[in-house]
Amino acid sequence: MAAPSVFRLLHRVLPRLGTQRARLSGGWVPPAQAPDANSFVARTNTCGELRAAHVGQEVTLCGWIQYQRQGLFLVLRDFQGLTQLVIPQDEWSQVQTDRSAVRHVASEFLRYIGIPLQAHSHVRKLLSNAPVESVVRVTGIVSSRPPGQENAKMPTGDIEVKVETAEVLNFCKKLPFEIKDFIKKSEALRMQYRYLDLRSSQLQHNLRLRSHVVMRMREYLCNHHGFVDVETPTLFKRTPGGAKEFLVPSREVGKFYSLPQSPQQFKQLLMIGGLDRYFQVARCYRDEGSRPDRQPEFTQIDIEMSFVDQAGIQRLIEGLLQYSWPEERGPITTPFPSMTYEEALAAYGTDKPDTRFGMKIVDISDALRRWDVRFVQNVLSYPHGTAKAICIPQGVRYLKNKDVESLKEAAKSQFNQEIVDVICRPDGSLKSLLTKFLGEEQQSELKQVLNMQVDDVVLLAAGDHKRVCSALGSLRLESADLLEAAGVVLRDPTALHFLWVVDFPLFLPKEENPTELESAHHPFTAPHPLDTDLLYSDPAKVRSQHYDLVLNGNEIGGGSIRIHDAEQQRFVLEKVLKEDSEVLSHLLEALEFGAPPHGGIALGLDRLISLIVGSPSIRDVIAFPKSFKGRDLMGNAPEYVTPEELEPYHIHVSWPVAETEAKKN
Amino acid sequence: MAAPSVFRLLHRVLPRLGTQRARLSGGWVPPAQAPDANSFVARTNTCGELRAAHVGQEVTLCGWIQYQRQGLFLVLRDFQGLTQLVIPQDEWSQVQTDRSAVRHVASEFLRYIGIPLQAHSHVRKLLSNAPVESVVRVTGIVSSRPPGQENAKMPTGDIEVKVETAEVLNFCKKLPFEIKDFIKKSEALRMQYRYLDLRSSQLQHNLRLRSHVVMRMREYLCNHHGFVDVETPTLFKRTPGGAKEFLVPSREVGKFYSLPQSPQQFKQLLMIGGLDRYFQVARCYRDEGSRPDRQPEFTQIDIEMSFVDQAGIQRLIEGLLQYSWPEERGPITTPFPSMTYEEALAAYGTDKPDTRFGMKIVDISDALRRWDVRFVQNVLSYPHGTAKAICIPQGVRYLKNKDVESLKEAAKSQFNQEIVDVICRPDGSLKSLLTKFLGEEQQSELKQVLNMQVDDVVLLAAGDHKRVCSALGSLRLESADLLEAAGVVLRDPTALHFLWVVDFPLFLPKEENPTELESAHHPFTAPHPLDTDLLYSDPAKVRSQHYDLVLNGNEIGGGSIRIHDAEQQRFVLEKVLKEDSEVLSHLLEALEFGAPPHGGIALGLDRLISLIVGSPSIRDVIAFPKSFKGRDLMGNAPEYVTPEELEPYHIHVSWPVAETEAKKN
Repeated sequence: MAAPSVFRLLHRVLPRLGTQRARLSGGWVPPAQAPDANSFVARTNTCGELRAAHVGQEVTLCGWIQYQRQGLFLVLRDFQGLTQLVIPQDEWSQVQTDRSAVRHVASEFLRYIGIPLQAHSHVRKLLSNAPVESVVRVTGIVSSRPPGQENAKMPTGDIEVKVETAEVLNFCKKLPFEIKDFIKKSEALRMQYRYLDLRSSQLQHNLRLRSHVVMRMREYLCNHHGFVDVETPTLFKRTPGGAKEFLVPSREVGKFYSLPQSPQQFKQLLMIGGLDRYFQVARCYRDEGSRPDRQPEFTQIDIEMSFVDQAGIQRLIEGLLQYSWPEERGPITTPFPSMTYEEALAAYGTDKPDTRFGMKIVDISDALRRWDVRFVQNVLSYPHGTAKAICIPQGVRYLKNKDVESLKEAAKSQFNQEIVDVICRPDGSLKSLLTKFLGEEQQSELKQVLNMQVDDVVLLAAGDHKRVCSALGSLRLESADLLEAAGVVLRDPTALHFLWVVDFPLFLPKEENPTELESAHHPFTAPHPLDTDLLYSDPAKVRSQHYDLVLNGNEIGGGSIRIHDAEQQRFVLEKVLKEDSEVLSHLLEALEFGAPPHGGIALGLDRLISLIVGSPSIRDVIAFPKSFKGRDLMGNAPEYVTPEELEPYHIHVSWPVAETEAKKN
Repeated sequence: MAAPSVFRLLHRVLPRLGTQRARLSGGWVPPAQAPDANSFVARTNTCGELRAAHVGQEVTLCGWIQYQRQGLFLVLRDFQGLTQLVIPQDEWSQVQTDRSAVRHVASEFLRYIGIPLQAHSHVRKLLSNAPVESVVRVTGIVSSRPPGQENAKMPTGDIEVKVETAEVLNFCKKLPFEIKDFIKKSEALRMQYRYLDLRSSQLQHNLRLRSHVVMRMREYLCNHHGFVDVETPTLFKRTPGGAKEFLVPSREVGKFYSLPQSPQQFKQLLMIGGLDRYFQVARCYRDEGSRPDRQPEFTQIDIEMSFVDQAGIQRLIEGLLQYSWPEERGPITTPFPSMTYEEALAAYGTDKPDTRFGMKIVDISDALRRWDVRFVQNVLSYPHGTAKAICIPQGVRYLKNKDVESLKEAAKSQFNQEIVDVICRPDGSLKSLLTKFLGEEQQSELKQVLNMQVDDVVLLAAGDHKRVCSALGSLRLESADLLEAAGVVLRDPTALHFLWVVDFPLFLPKEENPTELESAHHPFTAPHPLDTDLLYSDPAKVRSQHYDLVLNGNEIGGGSIRIHDAEQQRFVLEKVLKEDSEVLSHLLEALEFGAPPHGGIALGLDRLISLIVGSPSIRDVIAFPKSFKGRDLMGNAPEYVTPEELEPYHIHVSWPVAETEAKKN
């Protein structure tokens, strides 16, 4: 065992030099660009960075005890990795004589400056008795592992550290679950002890990657393209239609702030204020009650530019993602393909198509129009009447009868859409409720239009265009899940299919009253330049300058060119949407004072990062997420407060009991 | 006048190339590191970047009309500067023959691809009639200004742009105030039309500098020192003593979220979660009602590290500020000096001393102890009895009698502290109420202790140490203001006096009941290592590991090493502070599961930036600040909401009238 030389010991007690801290000589030096994770602290190295080149160096490590083996070995963990420590077995007196002289000088020196040198027996006792997950600091000598004992799976697997001194900085009591990646624990337990779950390599990786990606985005926006990071208020007032905004009582009786769903108004006002290029990693709030995989607070990369058009924003975002995309998931190619909303709806039945696989919706109206089947003709005669189908390749082999039945039921219950299934028998003939209406020629035409092969299953729907497409789009995704569950490789998990969806309708009929219109996205979206005249004559037909960014079937961003003309904005609010424009009077007035043409976008950061790390839930990329009921299970929020605490805000709680009693009186 | 060549016109209609956009050749190229502010948009240059080297180039600029002179010139403004435009005076037909041939080809080409070339008369009409602050896009040729007409004060003063085509993108109606830096406008008007005030060069500069400084901080923390940017929740629950926290009603009856004053608990939990190095540019909330220059939401640079001590955090912050400090205000030297709380109180009467000037508090107890004056002896005999003074150099010359009187009154009303003034007459004798008690020798001793010169004014106080120091510290600052108002240069406005104040008391007597203790800062602060034993015997005497960072007399940051031992934390909460520790049970439990030693700091970003830009108010470094009453004067927040909007949150407003009626019944 190597004993620390006086020189090394002197080195250890030298004052720390911050960023200029002298690197231990002769060893592995991190790349010039890599951050120094050991500056300003009491360690020399992290638990992930020691290599064969460090052998012979004295190092100080801090970390958590991952496990301990029979008082001989201990594995120490920190955020960067694991290092094997060798617990000293020899006693103080057992070291060789020539070295003990050195040790004597060293120990005298250390005692003089107040650092006692420890006996090995003491170190052994400390390290052998400390429970798993206790926090320790050790100093020792990096040594090669004995031949044959190297661990190629471990980045530090060539070395071990022979411990000279040790200190238990904090003990750990019995854990509710082990900090090992392979240990399964319930979501509720993970949330309650979130600080323990954060020690897992998965969450460490997710949060660090998130930080890194955001930092790269900032570099791209600020340092490369002159964007200004501006913080906008989160205490504002309710926006029209802001039914999902949290309220914050103020000290003025009856008046409330509101936590905005996005900085939309502020970023437009910044453009009017001449900021030219704005971005913010913006905290946003949305009170939707209980919804799976939604969070009451979430983060978006919020961007706005003046003097820009739709293509400008799209190229910006492509560059942004390319620049910030982590190497482990890259590279990505740009420009991203583009598809109109109508195309997406027709081919995929959704405005966020997953283009990683085929099974597109096929229009079979023309084929069916030639059939002499009354109810088909009937459906096709309606204004938006259509007949469409998807073909599930080899569906007979991979889908059970009950799968097909449940698909049909789902279409019925979710979309009120009847589905007819058609199967291609081994002899090429079709099996379906429909076949009795079809001649051989018609069956052949159907097979050809759908490119149907033996054992394929076709799901066919006729009716209103949007409903048929939506139902088949949903069945397409459910069928894909079923095929994959049955072992078919349909979607490459490493594939990255980015897609711009453009030319959305500007307005949609209100669900509760289809004769009235509401904004498809928000009332500030500009109409498509080719449709401006339609705005005043037939607003329902106007396409917008809204664009969505879709990745593998997930909407990861959306934005638009905004209305910059006050009169047009007023017309949209008052005449088309029939909204009270008073609540937006500040924005309408601002548009009259020289508002530049402008547009922007917001990327959903939580979703984007979860797609990058391949996590099914955004909760895995948020440090302290809320449960799907909006609760913090660790700190127990929200919580009751006393009536005295409510007093300054002039509110009180309407308890159900109180209500009942009030009714009685 | 130069006519655009076909080549240039072709160039103009080429598709934009994003970041790879071809720079106009032969001209000024921004430094490789400078951001490209013209990527993705329709302009070729900003209004601040054209120089003599650009002469002959065709450029497209977008901006606001700053002013227009007699239909001849127009000054265009954007975020980067001003450019003079020459409005074309010649008609279409007036251009020279050789050029008109070129123009004909060009115009035919442009008409072919759909871009009409404008007649100069049309351009002149457009630009002459557009009101100030209208938004225009112009294309033209950069030309040298005629000799003698260069403007050396204007960065673009060597050139002007001869406009060829122009488009008014938006008109501006009559403004509530002019966008000129020299125009004075009321704070309320500026706040109501914040988007217009944002166009001022001062606010543009402040917000851009803020963005730049924060970006540099991020580079230092993330890229240089391995910090992880982690977002923590803002919807949490009330913390003990969190009387200033905004409440957010939840959909669960009677339960409220709370908007935290800082991410304190979360950052400690992140350390327990092994994150090791955390930072966040964190939005924080504090409901203090009406207080000048406080904002209900504000931003702090929030930092926490594991395995660090006080010196480690201090060196980190010094490096951070040095790295991010804007060149225009730099350089700053490190390390910053340090002073204990007791030293600061004794010499400056405050925990945030302005060390840019002297006039320090001098202890004259020893001198006075030798005086045979009963009331002085009486005061000095109390446990914390003291006599102290400050000396205002040349006070007789610069302070009026009423100034001295108002200083004395302020000490009386704010600190209940009597002040005696002493003046040094031209003959060296002292004039004071006290002199009748003093012999010549005693007067001489007083002059010597205070280094008193002819015409100096001394303010003298005797009584309780802390009260005397606080009163004199306050008078010191007020006297400095008076001296400066009288023309004395006391504090160099460019000086940067950073100072660490350390060794604060851990606890303070509660104001309402001085026999009980409360945390001087917060209950998670660790005791000073030398005072740990005192914690259990005489907690009032314990110093803490809290540190404040002071700049020119302003607290710009504060932090501490935290308690990482669960038992110690429990003792502080339950035995010393007598708090219900149940509400912090998650944190106490977390400390038991292997919490590493850790500490951190938070810098007040708004105040820091306002000091950097030399602005008296933090409102000048916030894009959309609230008024001192917490109101958004532009959007009119907070605002009334309907009872229906309150229903999901099970609350209703206690209107004063309703209260009155309730009392009647």
